[in-house]
Amino acid sequence: MNKFLEEAIQEAKKGLQEGGIPIGSVLVLDGKIIGRGHNKRIQNSSAILHAEMDCLENAGRLSASEYKRATLYSTLSPCDMCSGAVLLYGITKVVVGENKNFQGPEEYVSSRGVSLEIINHEECISMMKKFIEESAILWNEDIGEES
Amino acid sequence: MNKFLEEAIQEAKKGLQEGGIPIGSVLVLDGKIIGRGHNKRIQNSSAILHAEMDCLENAGRLSASEYKRATLYSTLSPCDMCSGAVLLYGITKVVVGENKNFQGPEEYVSSRGVSLEIINHEECISMMKKFIEESAILWNEDIGEES
Repeated sequence: MNKFLEEAIQEAKKGLQEGGIPIGSVLVLDGKIIGRGHNKRIQNSSAILHAEMDCLENAGRLSASEYKRATLYSTLSPCDMCSGAVLLYGITKVVVGENKNFQGPEEYVSSRGVSLEIINHEECISMMKKFIEESAILWNEDIGEES
Repeated sequence: MNKFLEEAIQEAKKGLQEGGIPIGSVLVLDGKIIGRGHNKRIQNSSAILHAEMDCLENAGRLSASEYKRATLYSTLSPCDMCSGAVLLYGITKVVVGENKNFQGPEEYVSSRGVSLEIINHEECISMMKKFIEESAILWNEDIGEES
């Protein structure tokens, strides 16, 4: 089991405990976690704090060379916005907990040179599946879909 | 002159007065401004608060149908991250102050069904050009480039 994906799962669980959407993320540079975050749509009434965005914000202002060496971990396949942040900063590798419950623009992101590793980790899948079943309206809002 | 682009320019100027990067944005729904923002990289030491993201955050949590009716105005061509936010929420129209100093993934965004209107407004061009000339390191950081 990937220890950094495990940390992203811990972030997702923290979000769930706060009453939020259970998606978590960590940013790893040179073998160390330098940022961590989770979806804060509900907690902060935020339209932009998806887990990956919260993680990038908490990592702070990095240099281009740091982003290029970094790996972003997320429990769920990054959406258009979060994938766009990866492309903006030239992050070269993204490890995805699962893409069964939601799939972002993976083909496009790959075509722009990002290496994507899809784990399809059972805990990521089941946690997200349960949340979507129980909170479909919130989930749809988070991905810009009509309920 | 487009009155909403003028409001985005006012946001960019506010950012400049705060010592920030002069890019501004407004979100318009049914003829009214419902969110406004400007780049806050410097002011908030933020890696994610580009003008469009700040604007979307300030507009608050909207329904999918509201996003679909909305138009996003930005003084500068939206980067990968901000373009991704437009795609996530299904915003159907983006009015761009200028794309001479920087051009985001306009072709891709158009291919996903977003209508882009490029104004190339003289004040947007000159304001951004001056900032980039005077603050190249900050500007490169904002677009994920090496200095």
